[in-house]
Amino acid sequence: MAKSKIKHPSEPKNIAIAGATGAVGQEFLKIFEQDNFPIKSLKLLASARSAGTTMKFNGEDIIIEELTEKSFEGVDIALFSAGSSITKKFSQATVDAGAVLIDNSSAYRMTDNVPLIIPEINPQEAKNHQGIIANPNCSTIIMLMAVFPIHQKFPVKKIIVSTYQAASGAGWEAMEELKHASQAILDNKEFIPKVFPFVGAFNLFNHNTNIDETGYNEEEIKMVKETHKILRNDQILVSPTCVRVPVLRAHSESIHLEFVGDAPSEKEVTKLLQDFSGIKVVDDREKNYFPMPIDASEEYDCLVGRIRKDIGDPKKSMELFVSGDQLLKGAALNAVQIAGLL
Amino acid sequence: MAKSKIKHPSEPKNIAIAGATGAVGQEFLKIFEQDNFPIKSLKLLASARSAGTTMKFNGEDIIIEELTEKSFEGVDIALFSAGSSITKKFSQATVDAGAVLIDNSSAYRMTDNVPLIIPEINPQEAKNHQGIIANPNCSTIIMLMAVFPIHQKFPVKKIIVSTYQAASGAGWEAMEELKHASQAILDNKEFIPKVFPFVGAFNLFNHNTNIDETGYNEEEIKMVKETHKILRNDQILVSPTCVRVPVLRAHSESIHLEFVGDAPSEKEVTKLLQDFSGIKVVDDREKNYFPMPIDASEEYDCLVGRIRKDIGDPKKSMELFVSGDQLLKGAALNAVQIAGLL
Repeated sequence: MAKSKIKHPSEPKNIAIAGATGAVGQEFLKIFEQDNFPIKSLKLLASARSAGTTMKFNGEDIIIEELTEKSFEGVDIALFSAGSSITKKFSQATVDAGAVLIDNSSAYRMTDNVPLIIPEINPQEAKNHQGIIANPNCSTIIMLMAVFPIHQKFPVKKIIVSTYQAASGAGWEAMEELKHASQAILDNKEFIPKVFPFVGAFNLFNHNTNIDETGYNEEEIKMVKETHKILRNDQILVSPTCVRVPVLRAHSESIHLEFVGDAPSEKEVTKLLQDFSGIKVVDDREKNYFPMPIDASEEYDCLVGRIRKDIGDPKKSMELFVSGDQLLKGAALNAVQIAGLL
Repeated sequence: MAKSKIKHPSEPKNIAIAGATGAVGQEFLKIFEQDNFPIKSLKLLASARSAGTTMKFNGEDIIIEELTEKSFEGVDIALFSAGSSITKKFSQATVDAGAVLIDNSSAYRMTDNVPLIIPEINPQEAKNHQGIIANPNCSTIIMLMAVFPIHQKFPVKKIIVSTYQAASGAGWEAMEELKHASQAILDNKEFIPKVFPFVGAFNLFNHNTNIDETGYNEEEIKMVKETHKILRNDQILVSPTCVRVPVLRAHSESIHLEFVGDAPSEKEVTKLLQDFSGIKVVDDREKNYFPMPIDASEEYDCLVGRIRKDIGDPKKSMELFVSGDQLLKGAALNAVQIAGLL
């Protein structure tokens, strides 16, 4: 079975992480350790509040520095995961210092001349960067990891997708809040959420981003626009419904695919997915064993299963279910894979 | 706003509840109390294990009797919620005793001459019963409560639905298991599930029913077949994905509708839903406030929102989100409403 791979740059790099203390920032360090990524120097950057504290890397304490416009001197690759406004504030200084900025926020995803990359799908675009490369939204990455291997061979006309999104997408505070809310409900106590607009435990709610005049939330709009940009095809119809569920760190998605031509067989689709790097097929009908967030958590691969011809319209459509770690393939892993392309 | 209503029979009835101690059985008692349903006598039936214990009804203790073939003498209406095999075992005796059996299991749902009824949708079929009336599957009821008001005026060609199903569908043991599993995970302890095949807390999984050769699970097949029977229309394409999520007692469903003709406007759909008994429209884009299981829990009405033209194909399709109490409209309430038609 193909496994998610991280390409290594030809020589060790000077790397900076902006937002090192966040949920994604911590995953960068774990991936670099596990993967033995060739690093010449590692700079951990965060807000003034965290500056001076330390984080462990390969057994050593690294002192966190305050993120400033002067942070990027001598840096080859700057991994940003600190939100759009921080990226926008420091992007010019980063690029001016000669570093390549790989950004996990939505700041520049839809900007012309900023490649939006999933390394298994469009790695060739990395070479066109002009200082900034954007990491797609987590839900988009996880969806396209399941859809692209099929689409490549059997073009897709329409994707109807409903997500089951973990708390981690809103940061570690949101993961903690989900645990606290769960404990409060188990104890029959009131809980007032601070990170999320509603109590997340034993509940679910529309993705907590603004709704525009189409009635779609920002997360859903990202899935539409980013899919068009990554696949360089704005003819694919994408209809997303993004929902937060009480899960800690892996997103799941129920995906309905309508094809331009006839739908491929289940066997063909299974083979295409099995052969695709970064995908693990989990599809045991007899044991009723399919992708689950607890299995996808802390996994590099996205799990795909429930591969079946659409019972409503088997000639034209298929259905799938995918679970992928939001912090890894949905964020930190994808960004490190991009770094490996440089 | 129209509210779910329970019609009352013309005169008080002798009622028996088979499976009185279960999650749905307990809801029958609550509904009868809240609604002042006209009851001449009430018999609570369960397995020998529970016989002799009592349940409160309107402040009085009622002794639970063992369910036997002789339980139904003098009974007008027998509400069964004890699983398919119990229904099959006792249905003949019930009908022979002259009682009308309203069954919450799947035993006779697809049987000819057994009406399958959602009282807001096809109440007229109640009069055709030959002793047994079936209560549809919870996911089917909640979906059709949202779809039928629209379909009635703007015929639907295809329904693509992904569910977010509560533990209650598997009984109160499943609800307890979800709480225990949550506590174990919060305490970093191992948890071995007994009711569900997988740990339900902070996780989700394919509906725990058998998968047939189509790749669909039984719950999904029910949604397809029951929709065709209830709407007396097997041309509607239904493509379901049924998923268990860590929610206690309300199911949610993300619904994509493709119409035979052009899609109606959001305003038209909202009006149709607002005017339909048993539906409450919850759709506040500005406050990002939409149907949530915690709001739907213990509510008679199903909550519908996220009403929007499909961003992929606005001319032909729409999207919706519904949450409904699985134990009430998905089970006990619908059955009591059927009893009210007799």
